[in-house]
Amino acid sequence: MKAEMVAPHETPGDMSPEDFRRYGHQIVDWIAEYLSHPERYPILSQNQPGDVKSALPSSAPERGESFEAMLADLDRVIVPGVTHWNNPAFFAYFPSSGSGPGILGELLTAAFNVNAMLWRTSPSATELEEVTLDWLRQMIGLSNDFEGVIYDTASISTLCAIAAAREAVPDLRVREDGLAGAKLRIYASEHVHSSIDRSAITLGIGQSALRKIPCDSEYRMEPRSLELAIADDRAHGWQPFCVVATTGTTSSASIDPVAAIADICEREGVWLHVDAAYGGFAAVVPEMRWILEGADRADSLVINPHKSLFVPLDLSVLYCKQMDVLRSAFSLVPEYLRSDEGDDVRNFMDYGPQLGRRFRALKLWFVMRYFGIEGLRERISNQLAMAREFAGWIEQSDDFELMAPVSLGLVCFRARPHSIDEQAERSLKENPKVPHWSRDVEYVDNYLDILNEGLLEEVNRRGKVFLSHTKLNEAFTLRLAIGNIRTTREHVKLAWDELNDVLGSRN
Amino acid sequence: MKAEMVAPHETPGDMSPEDFRRYGHQIVDWIAEYLSHPERYPILSQNQPGDVKSALPSSAPERGESFEAMLADLDRVIVPGVTHWNNPAFFAYFPSSGSGPGILGELLTAAFNVNAMLWRTSPSATELEEVTLDWLRQMIGLSNDFEGVIYDTASISTLCAIAAAREAVPDLRVREDGLAGAKLRIYASEHVHSSIDRSAITLGIGQSALRKIPCDSEYRMEPRSLELAIADDRAHGWQPFCVVATTGTTSSASIDPVAAIADICEREGVWLHVDAAYGGFAAVVPEMRWILEGADRADSLVINPHKSLFVPLDLSVLYCKQMDVLRSAFSLVPEYLRSDEGDDVRNFMDYGPQLGRRFRALKLWFVMRYFGIEGLRERISNQLAMAREFAGWIEQSDDFELMAPVSLGLVCFRARPHSIDEQAERSLKENPKVPHWSRDVEYVDNYLDILNEGLLEEVNRRGKVFLSHTKLNEAFTLRLAIGNIRTTREHVKLAWDELNDVLGSRN
Repeated sequence: MKAEMVAPHETPGDMSPEDFRRYGHQIVDWIAEYLSHPERYPILSQNQPGDVKSALPSSAPERGESFEAMLADLDRVIVPGVTHWNNPAFFAYFPSSGSGPGILGELLTAAFNVNAMLWRTSPSATELEEVTLDWLRQMIGLSNDFEGVIYDTASISTLCAIAAAREAVPDLRVREDGLAGAKLRIYASEHVHSSIDRSAITLGIGQSALRKIPCDSEYRMEPRSLELAIADDRAHGWQPFCVVATTGTTSSASIDPVAAIADICEREGVWLHVDAAYGGFAAVVPEMRWILEGADRADSLVINPHKSLFVPLDLSVLYCKQMDVLRSAFSLVPEYLRSDEGDDVRNFMDYGPQLGRRFRALKLWFVMRYFGIEGLRERISNQLAMAREFAGWIEQSDDFELMAPVSLGLVCFRARPHSIDEQAERSLKENPKVPHWSRDVEYVDNYLDILNEGLLEEVNRRGKVFLSHTKLNEAFTLRLAIGNIRTTREHVKLAWDELNDVLGSRN
Repeated sequence: MKAEMVAPHETPGDMSPEDFRRYGHQIVDWIAEYLSHPERYPILSQNQPGDVKSALPSSAPERGESFEAMLADLDRVIVPGVTHWNNPAFFAYFPSSGSGPGILGELLTAAFNVNAMLWRTSPSATELEEVTLDWLRQMIGLSNDFEGVIYDTASISTLCAIAAAREAVPDLRVREDGLAGAKLRIYASEHVHSSIDRSAITLGIGQSALRKIPCDSEYRMEPRSLELAIADDRAHGWQPFCVVATTGTTSSASIDPVAAIADICEREGVWLHVDAAYGGFAAVVPEMRWILEGADRADSLVINPHKSLFVPLDLSVLYCKQMDVLRSAFSLVPEYLRSDEGDDVRNFMDYGPQLGRRFRALKLWFVMRYFGIEGLRERISNQLAMAREFAGWIEQSDDFELMAPVSLGLVCFRARPHSIDEQAERSLKENPKVPHWSRDVEYVDNYLDILNEGLLEEVNRRGKVFLSHTKLNEAFTLRLAIGNIRTTREHVKLAWDELNDVLGSRN
């Protein structure tokens, strides 16, 4: 039979090992340059819609192209259209930083290319997931009643937590019969992340089943209001089944009173899920461990190492006390996936909606080992200190004001120039038709919204730093979030200088 | 202010650019070696449960470790516990191969580390996703009524397709009210992938809402049975809303008659989703385009470039004709994610359950450009030819038999030694208590199941090749699936030799 076979080198196969080495080294060098000279690129891409599309052919090439041509297009077409999340002066949303060891971990993950669905399809991926999640659990001070599972995003972690809560509802055969007839109710603060709304929609519970609880002046859920809402719902035939408490909301990084909420959940017999997707990282620092106070009494908790733990996207972790409930919310084992290891091993495919699972634990392992607990603590403390310092500059300024307390890496603020009252006075004279009782407050609010929206747009357009916004009490609010591993005080100072410079040029 | 600032080099930051270069080059070289000498490792990990866990410390290191130590542990602990999906003699499940350009694309994705949730958070990621999915659409001959979106896995693509179908149900306000009271019904063949069942559970529709339609002798859905099932359901108050047709089922790669199913769906007004997650790749070869015949009449279709299109995990594509319906099944835009580009751009976060989205299009772009349409066609044709050749060897053998037709890269077969009738005869004499009318058939079936299960176990234990199994008509069936870009006829021949060798040593 051998004689008729095509010799291996004649078979069209993969890129040769020599080429892989050559281009691999080139790309590694390119990345080292890219990461160490972030100032070369505006952070927010200056592209117009369609720029990338129009620079590329409308069909795939008929014949293969050289890798050199691809790398040239990377520089020519792709880089100008990248908003540089890995730039140390990226302060928008919640930053995510791919650290060196994290990036190299991803490279190995792609090379192994295992599907960690079953233990047997990659024992290392499964067990390293168990090991690293136990390390992380200890690092944030969570009790060993919790076990973990890695998903891609917090949206999926949250969806799985709520699916487990749904599965735990007594007398509801949701796997078999779906939600027909159920009147479930889930609670979260009015500042909760949109992934909770979206999970309610996706899971077929419906958005009207999500009851949003009012917050206090620091954007924290009011436990008393939660209590009343649950009582009111029970009186009207609803079945309360889950409460989501957030430590580190997306708008303002506010921290719900988890312990007081846990009291209510225990009394009412409902599932408590803690959304620490953003805030959880801070608990690595012992002095910040208070932010997870009460979380040990939760049923589940999500934390995103791909946010402020220097792990590249994507890697979100769900900790859960009742892994069997999470499992029964999703598990299905067709014959072609049956394996013999039985209860000795964990088959992670049983614990979520996804069958395909990348070997994500590798990059988390690399990051934890390379920096060590001490190194992570030092970096996180440093970031929290930079946020406090930026907040201090605002407090001392006549032209800016804080819009929320600062306890994590996020600062919410807005420009409020000291000249505003004179300006308002002047403008009121020019627009005397606005009724007197509302016009000064309303005028100033509108003026500040417009001013801050313009300020943000111009600062971002200049491209040296990138910030985002939210609304707090209806007011347009700027957000500066610190989280990139390469961010130094110089970058934070740059943001401050840019803000003052743009504001100064407007006044 | 400058005076009091810590100098940048004193700030604890990331790995230095010099170290990133050094270790990056080391890892690239390691991967080149790894991929070009797959024979060094048994494909199916020989680990016992707990081997990896017990080789690692129970807590994260207090102080950071050297990268050298981490790479040493990679060789010592991780590699022995890897089941080598990227090995060219991996024939289990459906293979996924990370080609060189695909792996290098992943490396860049990790370095950019963008979240492609909004156009503005990375115009290149968003537009390259549109461009590459249009290229792929043309390559598989799908009409331009379809637009695409990238998800992580086929499980999520499928869930999104069914969520869109659910959203399209008239008079069902599922976003707002959930599924309370609805009696929805979804249809798929009895050989459909478990992700359909799982989607029905996750979406709150319930598994009992999934009605499985019988198949013909070649494991294809019977359109007439589908028609009857829909009529029966309507008569009993169910609301049919979706049919899933599969081109390339997981057990046997059978291909449902999509055109006949489309006739029924059009008549009945239900959403048609085509699961071409596995089979779709073959349509890149013009002679194989028949497998998507009728798919142009579907509402949605999933194809997985991370299966047989040489793109590393994870990258699944959903094509959909009504992107507005898919959007309205998921879209939610909180203030902190509001951006100004309006309808000029696509914000992909609106089209699925996940807010976080990696820049996955980059690796697909690299793979399509590096190999070109011609190169992909050649490689896919070659793989299909190897599967046919392996099937030919089985047909000519006295000791093996095919269990399903072979039209894609998957061969379903089992050992059926020519001596079996004599053996059965002999054994019957030894066990005369089994009633005569059933004993020969039953005995042979049991015997073959046990024989093939043992054969598979031993072949996999030897570690040179890795196959998996399924059950077809209750019979234990071996699956050999060809899909790795580095697989040559020598690897397929090796599988054949191993099977014959192990079987020979048992007879």
